[in-house]
Amino acid sequence: MQSRTQCGTLTTQNVDESVLLKGWVQRRRDLGGLIFVDLRDRSGIVQVVFNPNINKDALEIAEKLRSEYVVEVKGTVKKREEATINAKMKTGEIEVEATEIHILNKSKALPIKIENQTDATEEIRLKYRYLDLRREEMQETMKLRHNISQAFRHYLDDNDFYEMETPMLTKSTPEGARDYLVPSRVHPGEFYALPQSPQLFKQLLMVSGFERYFQITRCFRDEDLRADRQPEFTQLDIETSFMDQEEIMAMTEEMLSSVVKKVKGVEVPTPFPRMTYEEAMERYGSDKPDTRFGLELVNVNNIVSESGFKVFKNAVESGGKVSAINVKGAADQFSRKDIDKLTELVAVYGAKGLAWMKVDGETFTGPIAKFFSEEEVKQLSAKLDASNNDLLLFVADKASVVADSLGALRLKLGKDLGLIDESKFNFLWVTDWPLFEYDEDEGRYHAAHHPFTMPQVQDVEKLEQDPANVKAQAYDVVLNGFELGGGSLRIYEKDLQEKMLKTLGFSDEEAKEQFGFLLEALEFGAPPHGGIALGLDRFVMILAGKTNLRDTILFPKTASASDPLTDAPSAVSTEQLDELFLKLTGKATE
Amino acid sequence: MQSRTQCGTLTTQNVDESVLLKGWVQRRRDLGGLIFVDLRDRSGIVQVVFNPNINKDALEIAEKLRSEYVVEVKGTVKKREEATINAKMKTGEIEVEATEIHILNKSKALPIKIENQTDATEEIRLKYRYLDLRREEMQETMKLRHNISQAFRHYLDDNDFYEMETPMLTKSTPEGARDYLVPSRVHPGEFYALPQSPQLFKQLLMVSGFERYFQITRCFRDEDLRADRQPEFTQLDIETSFMDQEEIMAMTEEMLSSVVKKVKGVEVPTPFPRMTYEEAMERYGSDKPDTRFGLELVNVNNIVSESGFKVFKNAVESGGKVSAINVKGAADQFSRKDIDKLTELVAVYGAKGLAWMKVDGETFTGPIAKFFSEEEVKQLSAKLDASNNDLLLFVADKASVVADSLGALRLKLGKDLGLIDESKFNFLWVTDWPLFEYDEDEGRYHAAHHPFTMPQVQDVEKLEQDPANVKAQAYDVVLNGFELGGGSLRIYEKDLQEKMLKTLGFSDEEAKEQFGFLLEALEFGAPPHGGIALGLDRFVMILAGKTNLRDTILFPKTASASDPLTDAPSAVSTEQLDELFLKLTGKATE
Repeated sequence: MQSRTQCGTLTTQNVDESVLLKGWVQRRRDLGGLIFVDLRDRSGIVQVVFNPNINKDALEIAEKLRSEYVVEVKGTVKKREEATINAKMKTGEIEVEATEIHILNKSKALPIKIENQTDATEEIRLKYRYLDLRREEMQETMKLRHNISQAFRHYLDDNDFYEMETPMLTKSTPEGARDYLVPSRVHPGEFYALPQSPQLFKQLLMVSGFERYFQITRCFRDEDLRADRQPEFTQLDIETSFMDQEEIMAMTEEMLSSVVKKVKGVEVPTPFPRMTYEEAMERYGSDKPDTRFGLELVNVNNIVSESGFKVFKNAVESGGKVSAINVKGAADQFSRKDIDKLTELVAVYGAKGLAWMKVDGETFTGPIAKFFSEEEVKQLSAKLDASNNDLLLFVADKASVVADSLGALRLKLGKDLGLIDESKFNFLWVTDWPLFEYDEDEGRYHAAHHPFTMPQVQDVEKLEQDPANVKAQAYDVVLNGFELGGGSLRIYEKDLQEKMLKTLGFSDEEAKEQFGFLLEALEFGAPPHGGIALGLDRFVMILAGKTNLRDTILFPKTASASDPLTDAPSAVSTEQLDELFLKLTGKATE
Repeated sequence: MQSRTQCGTLTTQNVDESVLLKGWVQRRRDLGGLIFVDLRDRSGIVQVVFNPNINKDALEIAEKLRSEYVVEVKGTVKKREEATINAKMKTGEIEVEATEIHILNKSKALPIKIENQTDATEEIRLKYRYLDLRREEMQETMKLRHNISQAFRHYLDDNDFYEMETPMLTKSTPEGARDYLVPSRVHPGEFYALPQSPQLFKQLLMVSGFERYFQITRCFRDEDLRADRQPEFTQLDIETSFMDQEEIMAMTEEMLSSVVKKVKGVEVPTPFPRMTYEEAMERYGSDKPDTRFGLELVNVNNIVSESGFKVFKNAVESGGKVSAINVKGAADQFSRKDIDKLTELVAVYGAKGLAWMKVDGETFTGPIAKFFSEEEVKQLSAKLDASNNDLLLFVADKASVVADSLGALRLKLGKDLGLIDESKFNFLWVTDWPLFEYDEDEGRYHAAHHPFTMPQVQDVEKLEQDPANVKAQAYDVVLNGFELGGGSLRIYEKDLQEKMLKTLGFSDEEAKEQFGFLLEALEFGAPPHGGIALGLDRFVMILAGKTNLRDTILFPKTASASDPLTDAPSAVSTEQLDELFLKLTGKATE
């Protein structure tokens, strides 16, 4: 039997060869008694010509072809005449003269077009996902995703990591996000939970002495969905024993840099730049700064603390902050109306206003310019590196509002003004995270990362008295303004872990009930250990140049966590519920 | 900072080198003022010596060491004196003279010993799984598992397959095994199901034009557990377009052979032997024959159909079957009592008796020998290749009972008589499976494989009238008597798929409700496609020489689908249930 040739691989090297092609009809044109068919398979497209002088029967079959019919074609590769060469096609210098054709399957008219620029709604794209996935850009993204996963595995395998599979049916732990539950049929009234991450299992594997673990695995969080969240997502999960923070970070850098090199051919220099959490918030108003452009936030507290402009003075006096962004050389591009729009944006983040001044030669203009002394203008100019035609934007508020609002404003301006070099892959470490976050609603501390994160050595003493100021041995890796992943050293001593849980408000009994097995494991020779987890979907998204996580996932869920293709979730039979000892309450969400 | 050296890698090559070791205390011996510690890490064990003349402080710390303490040791590699060389240890020619030691973590006395031959109960081993996994044989199995997974991925990547991730939260389809359900919080009263396999999604990926897909993925079946079943298990799942059965089988052979070569260094010849389902049942009484030994079943219907032994005659006349196993040269090893034991075994499989004769020179002896004519003895001798001191064992019953009982008897005898060469990897294809199984309880046909399996071309006509005799384009790959995996070509035409579902008893409406999306997809240019799925856990078990699937899985479930380590499944809060619109019925299993 003749073996199949891939359409997209044919070149002038193959001229006069006899080939067997199998694929889809991209389009058909009838011209001067001939029929031209663009035949597509995974590798690309080639033009097939049916000529009545070669085989009349084949031509007759070709007359029946419609878009997306599946066919098998035998023919001979021919060089095209100069005039008909298509420089836009990879195979544009040749065509295949068909000697035989069989229709393997037909196709109805398609509900969406198989073209890169689709105008189909997302709902339709997901309902007919198997057609949406035929589009070249989806095929390319999925191929890239495969290449990325394999590249991670190659690196980790080469570095003596074992890929190890942790359970999917596990125990529900209310700490953290909401669990997806799975009722047990064998144990009435009891439930498994799907893992939010393999965190505890990977720590136990370190207690087991495996030393170097990784897994590319599915994780589940039943959270309210946002554009960039999915109920199930894929994580590259890594854990090591006996390595310190520096070693784990260096290994991660080497791994990421080798993967980007392999799949994109781009050299990423190591070590990656680093920044503390505090510095990131101060300079970028974000814990995941996009460092591909400037527009940094500048704290001007010292200069404006005695200013005649009460808003600034009061902000500083009440323990808040005044920061500014200098939009270089853009004053003349921003009308009052434009600035009003920016004011609306910062208001979303709680800022009560956006103060602004324009630089005109040596002086500042605008409604608040009059409040600043000559000395203050001079100092602001120096600090903000202001020169003619710069636009200075200020927010004065408590620190978190200043960061959130100016951080968002910075990203919007960077995008709108075209300051972002899309070809760059800017990796960045953010370090020295706070160990806790205070939840004002609940009046208690939450773990900023997770309850197993190691405090910094000098802060251990503060755990009980001053948790707000305890820093973690934690590190996030940021890529182009996205949180790509986060890691930490873990607590490996039972006493410290118990203290940590206490600070989080666990009673001894609750701690034992939820994490007793971990506490016990720490008593049997647990080694120092730590690791990192990277979001694979997001990494694929960034490397593929996409803006939507759903474009990186084969069969994603909608914003309401449903799948329009299979219609999941759906009702199940009473028998199924009976077996699980469950009844529906019949109540619906308000 | 000095970088760490792995204990198990040290040899006489390293003598006089200064090393930093980190690991666990395997054992400590005090001898003549010195302390000897066997230090273990993932790579192996090395002996560390504490000598008061080198560092008295270090010796004092070493005095506190107990088994499984985690320590960091600096020292110098020394050649052992001839008399103290330990040939049993990989590192037995050297030892490390400690200059410094730090205790990184302590350990309580262990509930199980870290030794290969454990006598701990399985419950204890699972409760302290993180300790059980420290045992060398578990470490080796998990390393092998990693190597096997990576070897599959290398082969498939090299052959242009993409690894693609299908959803875990999907739609419940009652056809097949029982689903694990996941209640939806956003859609009251609705449920996702965890996948029993990615079957439909991988078929949709073929409709998408990906052509070559694979995935090493978790699958879930809520079945009553047996020793060799787990609620979640791992499958190597493969699907291809445009390949026929021969091509898929050849590719699978090449893949399996390359993996066994890579991880075990054993050459497995290809192509694998093949056998039809009918032949397997006839010759081995099993659809997954262990071909590492003989003891084949021989049908003697033709010889005994007119025999004076009524049991045989009647079995043949009523459409049943008489088959025999010849246990060569073993007649003198089997007393009446021994044979009674074998009779009990076949009774479990429904056989009403086990007839037997012993060969004594040219004649047969035993209680039923008298019923056979000289001619019949001659013919039986020839057919069964009987010679002096052979034991002939017969079952006469309907075909399925004969197969099941003699099949089980064959396996038991093969094992008991030591006929199985454990070093062999005997792969085998079983082909030409029936498409349907008749369910006598329900009075209807079930899909023997799954409802998407392609019938053999010549049998399509029989689908409606004579389903019992329709054969499938399906193939199982068997290894050493285990079903390693199964595959088939799939139905890619809507009409045939509809006919298939009808034969299975689906109304048009049910077919649409359950599989409407598949039927629709088949109308949009679905290519011919097929694939195979291999059980990874089982493959690891066989290659690791284990007999229990649980020894290949990091954190397996018990026979009641629970995890003694984390105590999953467990009760959840009323709030969690409320959010899911669920109530417990409070009923328990009878």
